[in-house]
Amino acid sequence: MHFLSQKKTLLNAISTVQKAVSSKTTLPILKGIYIEAISNHLKFVATDLEIGIEHITESNIVEEGSVVVDARLFSEIVRKLPDAEVEIFLREQQLVIKCQNTEFNILFYPSDEFPELPTVQQNTNYEINNQVFKNMIRQTSFATSQDEMKPVFTGVLVEIQDSTLNMVALDGYRLALKKVEISEEQNNKAIIPAKTLNEISRIMDDSDDTVYMTLSDKHALFTLGQTKLISRLLEGEFINYKQIIPKEYKTKIKVNTELLLNSVERAALISREGKNNPIKLIVNSDKLIITSNSEVGKVHEEIDIEIEGEDISIAFNSKYLLDVLKIIEDKYIYIDFMTSINPGLIRPEEDTNYKYLILPVRISED
Amino acid sequence: MHFLSQKKTLLNAISTVQKAVSSKTTLPILKGIYIEAISNHLKFVATDLEIGIEHITESNIVEEGSVVVDARLFSEIVRKLPDAEVEIFLREQQLVIKCQNTEFNILFYPSDEFPELPTVQQNTNYEINNQVFKNMIRQTSFATSQDEMKPVFTGVLVEIQDSTLNMVALDGYRLALKKVEISEEQNNKAIIPAKTLNEISRIMDDSDDTVYMTLSDKHALFTLGQTKLISRLLEGEFINYKQIIPKEYKTKIKVNTELLLNSVERAALISREGKNNPIKLIVNSDKLIITSNSEVGKVHEEIDIEIEGEDISIAFNSKYLLDVLKIIEDKYIYIDFMTSINPGLIRPEEDTNYKYLILPVRISED
Repeated sequence: MHFLSQKKTLLNAISTVQKAVSSKTTLPILKGIYIEAISNHLKFVATDLEIGIEHITESNIVEEGSVVVDARLFSEIVRKLPDAEVEIFLREQQLVIKCQNTEFNILFYPSDEFPELPTVQQNTNYEINNQVFKNMIRQTSFATSQDEMKPVFTGVLVEIQDSTLNMVALDGYRLALKKVEISEEQNNKAIIPAKTLNEISRIMDDSDDTVYMTLSDKHALFTLGQTKLISRLLEGEFINYKQIIPKEYKTKIKVNTELLLNSVERAALISREGKNNPIKLIVNSDKLIITSNSEVGKVHEEIDIEIEGEDISIAFNSKYLLDVLKIIEDKYIYIDFMTSINPGLIRPEEDTNYKYLILPVRISED
Repeated sequence: MHFLSQKKTLLNAISTVQKAVSSKTTLPILKGIYIEAISNHLKFVATDLEIGIEHITESNIVEEGSVVVDARLFSEIVRKLPDAEVEIFLREQQLVIKCQNTEFNILFYPSDEFPELPTVQQNTNYEINNQVFKNMIRQTSFATSQDEMKPVFTGVLVEIQDSTLNMVALDGYRLALKKVEISEEQNNKAIIPAKTLNEISRIMDDSDDTVYMTLSDKHALFTLGQTKLISRLLEGEFINYKQIIPKEYKTKIKVNTELLLNSVERAALISREGKNNPIKLIVNSDKLIITSNSEVGKVHEEIDIEIEGEDISIAFNSKYLLDVLKIIEDKYIYIDFMTSINPGLIRPEEDTNYKYLILPVRISED
């Protein structure tokens, strides 16, 4: 193997695949990046057996071949090289990395021990705008559970139904749902690990390009220009989320998103000292009063609101409110309530394709 | 106690004193900030009994008084308040913090339990330019030891001798010395904890103001505008550093600081896998060759240099080289060598007031 490549090109390729490198593994080769020089390009691959990322870049190939190099050492070396052309080749069982007056000789793994990424049949390619997809992930994936004991809750349901793509995430305490229209009509669904979606989101740059998604029985494949990400799917039955979303309300309020976010952030300073971080929302004619008590003190906040229906008192875990208020871009949101023991439903004023359900907590009256 | 103050003013006062708040303490009141309202100003004080910081700010005082509030809670509350006027007063054994539609009621400690800062007689005030002092600290304090078992090594010697202010730091492996001229002639010396100097440095903003330093037997007092920092001194005898600094050399090289920094950073990627992070410097006529070997591989770097004297091979701990190369601003440095077992002396080309001594490490020949 022998090739020439610009430092920046190498660094970009490494950064793209590096997140799939296994940090905790008993298989040392999974700490490596597979590099293959073929005809006029380089292929970089990394995988932790859950997610695999492949990136192709053009290069001046002198001699074809492949190696696996330690991801951490190789990325740090390339990062510290001068911004110039880098020559990489094999000599005396070592990988030589030359750049201007610098020469590294490092060990490598034989490339035939590196696991192949699974093949995904690309029957149906769902085509989605990068920014739209990135935003869907941002608005849902945070609502998944971190608890590996309930694997289904750690994933996001991706469901294509009649030209609508739904993403749904829930953890037993809240649910986030985002819809978009797509052109492909073939129905399908899969539970994709939140980690995979967050990786995809990271790889997508801020360009207006397109991401292609393919779903097989066991895997999802995402294609973004010269980069492919393959992830296993989560097995299990996703909760019938449509049943959970309330269709009616007894109280509906309209409140400024930023004012509510700021008030809840302040109230959370007091509530975090208690259990379940409870904060109380009191809808009192044209005011929303937010209070919290704990051993360190208490807080009282007032925000002007528009209200339709009855007054109500209800308590929520402040974290679950903060999470959603941080990702809504609309100036105003609606919150629908039934009773103080039914979930509240948060909807942005303009973006009718987003819904967030949040279970109340019971607190003692004071 | 009852006063009015802008959120920004409060936040600035809290940030200034907060670094002296004790993080690990068995005395809960030391986790607090002392706030006193007197005539037309507020006094904020925090101390961990090693360092004390006091900050004065103007305020609209309605009623005099003082409290101690939990530093973490109070600072987070103020940080999250709207950017507006804040009203603070006592009611029903709680501290009330009001701002627009927000009202906090929090617990406080009685202020008479808060320890008084030691008094330092201001006989001699050494006057130093902020930026000059900040730079002295930056160029020396990193060379102190982190090892609390050798307390003297954790401090910086501050020595005033014949209108010269010297700062000296050493840890047994390297020594950093910086001199400046000052107008005050009274001789004096003290060992100031590096932590104290780093705090002072943080408090100094980027203005061209002046810092005043007073030394007593037990304490150092620094005055910066409306802020005072008092620190205990370290006891013990500082090493006679003047004896250690070599007066002659057999080899003197002149090398580009940035090129050397970059080369040593790369070589350190290999050397960190070994013991003592050794890297080898080989002065070979008009070239400086830098090499390092470890189980992961090897590296070879070449830099053009100017040389006076004999060729030499010597090895250093890469960390000790990196530390100094990062803080030198001159484009070129000189390095003076005697033999491969004598310390090397690093001097910036233009700044003749800075010297850095570094002990070699022995490595096996290859």
